[in-house]
Amino acid sequence: MAEDKPPFIDPLNAFCKDTEAYLVGNTDGPLSGLTFAAKDIFDIEGHVTGGGNPDWKATHSPANHNAWIVQTLVDAGATMVGKTHTDELTRGILGENAHYGTPINSKAPARVPGGSSSGSAAAVAGGLVDFALGSDTGGSVRIPASFCGLYGLRPTHGRVLLDGILTQSPSYDTIGWFTRDASTYARIAEVVFGNPIPDTIPSHLVIAEDAFEEADRDVSDVLRPVAEKISAMVRNSSQVRLAPSGLIAWASQQNILQSEEAWDSVKDWVDTVNPRFSFWVSERYNLAINLTQDQITEAALLREQVRTRMDEVFANGGIVCLPTAVAPAPLLGLPASAKKEIQGRLSHLTCIAGTTGRPQLSLPLGEVNGLPVGLSFLGEHGSDEELIGFARIVEEAMVT
Amino acid sequence: MAEDKPPFIDPLNAFCKDTEAYLVGNTDGPLSGLTFAAKDIFDIEGHVTGGGNPDWKATHSPANHNAWIVQTLVDAGATMVGKTHTDELTRGILGENAHYGTPINSKAPARVPGGSSSGSAAAVAGGLVDFALGSDTGGSVRIPASFCGLYGLRPTHGRVLLDGILTQSPSYDTIGWFTRDASTYARIAEVVFGNPIPDTIPSHLVIAEDAFEEADRDVSDVLRPVAEKISAMVRNSSQVRLAPSGLIAWASQQNILQSEEAWDSVKDWVDTVNPRFSFWVSERYNLAINLTQDQITEAALLREQVRTRMDEVFANGGIVCLPTAVAPAPLLGLPASAKKEIQGRLSHLTCIAGTTGRPQLSLPLGEVNGLPVGLSFLGEHGSDEELIGFARIVEEAMVT
Repeated sequence: MAEDKPPFIDPLNAFCKDTEAYLVGNTDGPLSGLTFAAKDIFDIEGHVTGGGNPDWKATHSPANHNAWIVQTLVDAGATMVGKTHTDELTRGILGENAHYGTPINSKAPARVPGGSSSGSAAAVAGGLVDFALGSDTGGSVRIPASFCGLYGLRPTHGRVLLDGILTQSPSYDTIGWFTRDASTYARIAEVVFGNPIPDTIPSHLVIAEDAFEEADRDVSDVLRPVAEKISAMVRNSSQVRLAPSGLIAWASQQNILQSEEAWDSVKDWVDTVNPRFSFWVSERYNLAINLTQDQITEAALLREQVRTRMDEVFANGGIVCLPTAVAPAPLLGLPASAKKEIQGRLSHLTCIAGTTGRPQLSLPLGEVNGLPVGLSFLGEHGSDEELIGFARIVEEAMVT
Repeated sequence: MAEDKPPFIDPLNAFCKDTEAYLVGNTDGPLSGLTFAAKDIFDIEGHVTGGGNPDWKATHSPANHNAWIVQTLVDAGATMVGKTHTDELTRGILGENAHYGTPINSKAPARVPGGSSSGSAAAVAGGLVDFALGSDTGGSVRIPASFCGLYGLRPTHGRVLLDGILTQSPSYDTIGWFTRDASTYARIAEVVFGNPIPDTIPSHLVIAEDAFEEADRDVSDVLRPVAEKISAMVRNSSQVRLAPSGLIAWASQQNILQSEEAWDSVKDWVDTVNPRFSFWVSERYNLAINLTQDQITEAALLREQVRTRMDEVFANGGIVCLPTAVAPAPLLGLPASAKKEIQGRLSHLTCIAGTTGRPQLSLPLGEVNGLPVGLSFLGEHGSDEELIGFARIVEEAMVT
């Protein structure tokens, strides 16, 4: 391509410094004119996928092709300008990487950006690119979207081809992206899903009572009125408690089963390389190492209960409305105990989509003391386009 | 001091590259003319004690005084030329440091030097210094002494002041040193202990049958005749099985109790800093995190049984003779499973002195296929001088 590469500025520590992954987009595609970045778990031909860990990077070869979604976006006209920081091997939800530092959350500079798609969220929030690719296994798109005031979808599990990305936990891994507005989100979604994004309003909206109770009081106080306002746009609405056994129990099973898969994905490499991890990452792998068969069996049973219960909730179709995160972005550099507590609490809400494979879109519809908080739409399997289409309608309604 | 610092050569990756810790020895002391190095867990005034982990180094201040033993040796005339590599925070027995690389075992270059006092052993074995300081918590002097063909003492627990060293597990930590010959060992010991080293032969020598059985067949085949030869120098000798419940059980309790203390020593720092460790180091800390109170109680009971049994073995005084290590130095870069197996097996013999606080001196008295293997004298509490004195006699007897 003849285009010149513009000078690259990254005041937010969002980008990997040693990877010049620049792919000029097709000149007359539907995404022409848009720039994007990709989390450093997406393969780019000729570059090593670093995965946020220097020992991973040092022991892997350059990729031999572009990840399917990257190639699709470039073919559709978007220009990729770089790769972005991630929590180590996607094992984190706050975005603090012990090797490469923490990308700056320009919407809340004293706070974490959220992770693991930390650099992608920071780059979009700070206006460095129009959109950015991330992945969501346990909340890694939804949480940074909420913390940085962005739109971010965890698609239906299996809908976006996982070709050319670093695997964490196959039963949970999904690819999503971040934008600052719903219409750009929809524009990209049409390319990714190959379908038009409809302007339809769901027939039914369920407000997840227990999810709002799980969130900090000030988060609920801000988001609950927004949810009410949106429910007024929908023909039928109802209030439901999702988790009879409690959201904490719901989260515990995913923590166990996801940890087990995540360890399975890397254990041969770990045994060979003896890589360096920050302690909290290694602690999560060790959780898996120390699991008993009883714990795994019990978690698998609970997983079935969660899935059955959510099928009931969706028996009449529609969407479920819940806070994306229990709290706004935590302060940078919290002590370990405080970090672990918030990590645990975040999973109480993220596990619902994660466990059931349903799509969940976070919308930047609230602020608590000037800090962004996201409201989420959780939909039926395969309803990704409808969620995004409704978000576009809601965005317009909120602005006007 | 007026002496010029000679050019420093380190072809063995034994020394820390970024620490110029050079202390000129007193000109007319008993150790004048000797050069030494110290494992990078010994404080040197004005230098940060790195402990084999870059995040430890980055988060600690320079030491405000020299460790007691370093100052004592310099006052006695020895010149300290540098600090040496260690396994991370002394948590390793093979000497492979993921951050700084593996010191070269010049006696077996395709093999590990042993750890955690890896650089000190490598520096002495390679002739870069006359002696070097290490520490022994679970075998970190004895094992590298065996692997590198050196003399190395784990002193009676509590006999050498632990002032100015990085703590691993206080109930087990000791300071030792390496030399190439027994007479230099004795010369240093007279300074450290403040007592003359006697030329006395113990009244009784016990050959630890089960310890010889625990070692590889070719190690026993080489060391057993040496032990017989030494027992012929002693008035009474006998053959005893030390561990009625088996040496594997004996080692398991120390693994648990030492892990718990080691984690206790660093957990506040780990929680604050979230440091990077190689995975195998973090796995050992996680062992402690996941211990149950039942496991700890059971281990403490077993520890008492070990101590009582060894008091019985020493009822008639004398020394116990056993192989230092179950095998010669393993090859560099073994797979994790093989490494863990050898680490576990090494502890079956090292735990005896570790658990009972008794002194153990490894003597370089054997070779298996050209690889050094050490024979050990285990003594009564406080008999450090006698062990070293007898080693000097044995050395002479073996040479002549």
